Amino acid sequence: MVHVGVIGLGYWGPNIVRNFHGAEGCRVEKICDTNEEALKLARRSFPDIEKTSDWKALVSDPSIDAIAIATPVSTHFSVAKMALENGKHIFVEKAFTASSSQAEELIEIAERKDLKIMVDHTFLFTGAVKKIKELIDDGTLGPLYYYDSIRINLGLFQHDVNVIWDLAPHDLSIMDHVIREKPEAIVTTGGNHFTAHEYVAYTTIYFSNHIIAHLNVNWLSPVKVRTTLVGGEKKMLVWNDLDADEKIKVYDKGVEVENREGVYDLLVSYRTGDVWAPKLEQTEALRLETQYFVDCIVNDEKPFNDGYSGYRIVKMLEAADKSLKKRGELVYL
Amino acid sequence: MVHVGVIGLGYWGPNIVRNFHGAEGCRVEKICDTNEEALKLARRSFPDIEKTSDWKALVSDPSIDAIAIATPVSTHFSVAKMALENGKHIFVEKAFTASSSQAEELIEIAERKDLKIMVDHTFLFTGAVKKIKELIDDGTLGPLYYYDSIRINLGLFQHDVNVIWDLAPHDLSIMDHVIREKPEAIVTTGGNHFTAHEYVAYTTIYFSNHIIAHLNVNWLSPVKVRTTLVGGEKKMLVWNDLDADEKIKVYDKGVEVENREGVYDLLVSYRTGDVWAPKLEQTEALRLETQYFVDCIVNDEKPFNDGYSGYRIVKMLEAADKSLKKRGELVYL
Amino acid sequence: MVHVGVIGLGYWGPNIVRNFHGAEGCRVEKICDTNEEALKLARRSFPDIEKTSDWKALVSDPSIDAIAIATPVSTHFSVAKMALENGKHIFVEKAFTASSSQAEELIEIAERKDLKIMVDHTFLFTGAVKKIKELIDDGTLGPLYYYDSIRINLGLFQHDVNVIWDLAPHDLSIMDHVIREKPEAIVTTGGNHFTAHEYVAYTTIYFSNHIIAHLNVNWLSPVKVRTTLVGGEKKMLVWNDLDADEKIKVYDKGVEVENREGVYDLLVSYRTGDVWAPKLEQTEALRLETQYFVDCIVNDEKPFNDGYSGYRIVKMLEAADKSLKKRGELVYL
Amino acid sequence: MVHVGVIGLGYWGPNIVRNFHGAEGCRVEKICDTNEEALKLARRSFPDIEKTSDWKALVSDPSIDAIAIATPVSTHFSVAKMALENGKHIFVEKAFTASSSQAEELIEIAERKDLKIMVDHTFLFTGAVKKIKELIDDGTLGPLYYYDSIRINLGLFQHDVNVIWDLAPHDLSIMDHVIREKPEAIVTTGGNHFTAHEYVAYTTIYFSNHIIAHLNVNWLSPVKVRTTLVGGEKKMLVWNDLDADEKIKVYDKGVEVENREGVYDLLVSYRTGDVWAPKLEQTEALRLETQYFVDCIVNDEKPFNDGYSGYRIVKMLEAADKSLKKRGELVYL
Repeated sequence: MVHVGVIGLGYWGPNIVRNFHGAEGCRVEKICDTNEEALKLARRSFPDIEKTSDWKALVSDPSIDAIAIATPVSTHFSVAKMALENGKHIFVEKAFTASSSQAEELIEIAERKDLKIMVDHTFLFTGAVKKIKELIDDGTLGPLYYYDSIRINLGLFQHDVNVIWDLAPHDLSIMDHVIREKPEAIVTTGGNHFTAHEYVAYTTIYFSNHIIAHLNVNWLSPVKVRTTLVGGEKKMLVWNDLDADEKIKVYDKGVEVENREGVYDLLVSYRTGDVWAPKLEQTEALRLETQYFVDCIVNDEKPFNDGYSGYRIVKMLEAADKSLKKRGELVYL
Repeated sequence: MVHVGVIGLGYWGPNIVRNFHGAEGCRVEKICDTNEEALKLARRSFPDIEKTSDWKALVSDPSIDAIAIATPVSTHFSVAKMALENGKHIFVEKAFTASSSQAEELIEIAERKDLKIMVDHTFLFTGAVKKIKELIDDGTLGPLYYYDSIRINLGLFQHDVNVIWDLAPHDLSIMDHVIREKPEAIVTTGGNHFTAHEYVAYTTIYFSNHIIAHLNVNWLSPVKVRTTLVGGEKKMLVWNDLDADEKIKVYDKGVEVENREGVYDLLVSYRTGDVWAPKLEQTEALRLETQYFVDCIVNDEKPFNDGYSGYRIVKMLEAADKSLKKRGELVYL
Repeated sequence: MVHVGVIGLGYWGPNIVRNFHGAEGCRVEKICDTNEEALKLARRSFPDIEKTSDWKALVSDPSIDAIAIATPVSTHFSVAKMALENGKHIFVEKAFTASSSQAEELIEIAERKDLKIMVDHTFLFTGAVKKIKELIDDGTLGPLYYYDSIRINLGLFQHDVNVIWDLAPHDLSIMDHVIREKPEAIVTTGGNHFTAHEYVAYTTIYFSNHIIAHLNVNWLSPVKVRTTLVGGEKKMLVWNDLDADEKIKVYDKGVEVENREGVYDLLVSYRTGDVWAPKLEQTEALRLETQYFVDCIVNDEKPFNDGYSGYRIVKMLEAADKSLKKRGELVYL
Repeated sequence: MVHVGVIGLGYWGPNIVRNFHGAEGCRVEKICDTNEEALKLARRSFPDIEKTSDWKALVSDPSIDAIAIATPVSTHFSVAKMALENGKHIFVEKAFTASSSQAEELIEIAERKDLKIMVDHTFLFTGAVKKIKELIDDGTLGPLYYYDSIRINLGLFQHDVNVIWDLAPHDLSIMDHVIREKPEAIVTTGGNHFTAHEYVAYTTIYFSNHIIAHLNVNWLSPVKVRTTLVGGEKKMLVWNDLDADEKIKVYDKGVEVENREGVYDLLVSYRTGDVWAPKLEQTEALRLETQYFVDCIVNDEKPFNDGYSGYRIVKMLEAADKSLKKRGELVYL
């Protein structure tokens, strides 16, 4: 039995509590928030779990094996570090840390003490992303050309980070997971009018082997859009996460390029065929992820979304921020 | 009566012929293409118009008052220059010229000889763009925050230009027309895999007064998208040009930002209200534009989409190209 | 303080419990189901409410003021009757009863004992239906022409009733609420292949004053549709309940009919204008409805969705069933 | 070479002219309309075809082999009869005739004189309907359960017929073509407010073997809908004719019904799988159909959309009309 403590009961924390609560081989022993209102709500939702406002006591509690951290990003490092130093495995909400050096330090402690780190990149456990990975890995899409994602809606403006740190970790972690090439450099542009932090940002990521990725994130869009295009040599797909029934559509479309000797111009011909919306796994992603965390601890396995995965995302966020500040300067990773 | 000759009967040319043919106070006297197949098709569609394959004779024909040029961009300059030198008004398909210096030279000749130049930025005559301009000009949207356009589809790959020169002139001319601030600098990234020319490109344009614009153009998308978001302080709009009935939707949505003294954090509150799809003018844009060209000649008026307008778009295209070649370097306009 | 007992903890019952639990001036004292599994789930969701499997004890419990009944339709009558006879107000899930005579008997008892009956026609409390009623009542739509509703999806097949008794009460109660004319006659057709009960049915309802209504209900559709058209002389609306953001769109469209003297043919001209999606109230309908029930008891007011409202819907369901059995015979109401 | 004359140059006639004009082995010799305005337009569109306003001369012209009739339905019989009597093959716009007895008489003449009749049920030649027929014929859908079509829009109000005669022939001819069972009886309801003719109608058609079909046709809808659901035991499909790219979607969805002995209730389980949008043939339907007419004459073959096909549709229209007048009375076919 893995005994879990959860710190941070804001927007996402209660989902983490509920899912660890339902996981096999696991019990949520204590939940913590320094905010009285959050604790009051938790009393209603989780009447049978002990509450506390003292996170330092929780991370050093000898009855606890693992700590799930769902506090603001700026606090991840200090909470995670103390948890690791007290011998707890950690499950950390994205973004892993506020800087890559923090991430490195946490990874170093965890390795030294033989503890697990899992970064909560929930999307990697959705039926949609698992299907995209499968379609790339089994060669259905063919070599990739581009990955193009739009993640926009109205609000919620964050006070401590810009829109990139808020929304881009989703796409960055998915790209990191499904694209098998390495990201090489980043260009980010963006705008801020009335706020200290950018509310809209456009990020291009150059991968090796000519793959190009682009993210459009925006807190000030009148409509909510969650659409990703993945273009491959053989097939292309559109992932519309807001479509209840057909989130992923695979298009048997493409171009055939023929480079004939002695001919200057390309011969480009178009291919269009059927469209196919594969059935996707429906299980709640966070349920699968929390169970996976418990299983990794029990079986002493290394999660694929471990500290290194979190580190890579934070590196890209830092690079995007740096490029943004210099109006689109190319930043190598 | 304005006597018009049309040169170039490829994809767009026949539409120009048909519309000048229907314009009041105008007669299409001769149409020209060097391609036999194009002339043959023209014989069928326009049995009563004289055809020729000799464009040089046409631009110097004394019975002709104005020349419409719908040839590949690389040829615009030489045809347009000879036409102007022979005292013809010119109507030139987008992009105006292949370089800004060519545009400057044509403008200079036209001014010297008191001739009209109109650049065929057809979208400026659509009901949708006219409504967007109206909603900005009358203050409905309030001060602008951003302009974000997606113009993607499968093909048609061009052999002589990249996707920016093919698709971006539409959005650039619309921005030039509706945004009242000046573009200051451009950042463009893009990808090319198997072709000499980029098939996907992402362009950010920084305007004065913090307005930011972004274009996503792609020849290799499995789906066709023509969607533009315009965010304003008071209202925001979405223009979906593929929606048959409700191309433009105006959202009474926004944020209210309060900067209270002594308070570090912003207070951001959200406002959501009705959505409104205004009825749009339905007349074919090219019909309005060709009539406007005729009227400008007859009434000796300067068109708003004149050579300077074409020049500004070419300047932006050049800047985008330059930035693209240097992987997103900031290029000032 | 109104003390409520809830009987039936299947699909809908827990929602009723949760909402009465949150209502002001109300306390859910006991909840009941004869099914062990349902009680077990309830223990988890509502740890602080007393559970019982003895509904007869509950309806005669002197500490209870009102009983909410969310059991299968066939059992509504016996439970409701005993509750009324024990002096309890009742809140009954749709359909009110399995026959109109049962409804009449319950109304009679309630009136005799001065008790409230509320039939749970939840849709009447949604922002969408409230807006539709408002647009009809304030004359925006003008005199009504037709009401046309599609309510189809895959399953859930009911074992004890056909698709009409399952899905049509929603539309029938909405029509009863918003159309101010009287329904006069019903024609229903339908199909059953492999089941005792029809899985698809088409119902036409003739109202006075030439208004016609139609319902298409189907348990065997591959896609979920919840769309209603309301055609009025001045304006028309489409209610798409699956649209997250713009459930109701009002179209400034219509026909102008001119009957000129001495002219045989009609002159019909078309009018098309703006489209408008009004902002809708977002509060959960069942929350408003349960609060309304409590308030009606406290203030001794008669709910508009009372026993008579339930009776009228059951009358229409009976007529539809009768017509269906005779393959579309006209049945007067 | 088949020499064709076309009578009726209103809305649909010019399309017929254009397509016969492009058909192989065929020449349109003369086109006819009694309306001066229509002839004037035709002069522009078809400068090289002889025009006439004398249809009687045309149907007896010895240089003509076949007559295409695109006049109002009420005139089909007299024009077609005279054409047949003069030894011409006929191609007749839907609906074939204004009554089934007229249809029978035309069929009798054609058979006696060994002439072809083709009724212009254009939809049967679309890629969509051909794919639906293929999916039924090859067993993909399994035995059919239902066919449910919605065909609604604003206008155009016809002066001489109600909405059924205007819009239903499309669906009736498709059902006649793809459903292999026989229609047995019809129930039609509908409404007319301000016109002599019904503007909205709902038609149920009972086929043998428990298949049920339903049509919803409406001239007074604020939105245009062209959607048909076909439910089969194995798979179900949705045909949205307004979707540019994915008109047909095949759903691997259904129910598995198990009738266990001694068990009263059904066990119904649901199956959901992939969705598939097959690529459809893109050739213009009327082009294929006109070519097919020419080929049937040249090769002396009997078209599948012959007079009998037209007769069956007219029989259903008559039955629908009869049922409509009696407010949904069941009319056997």
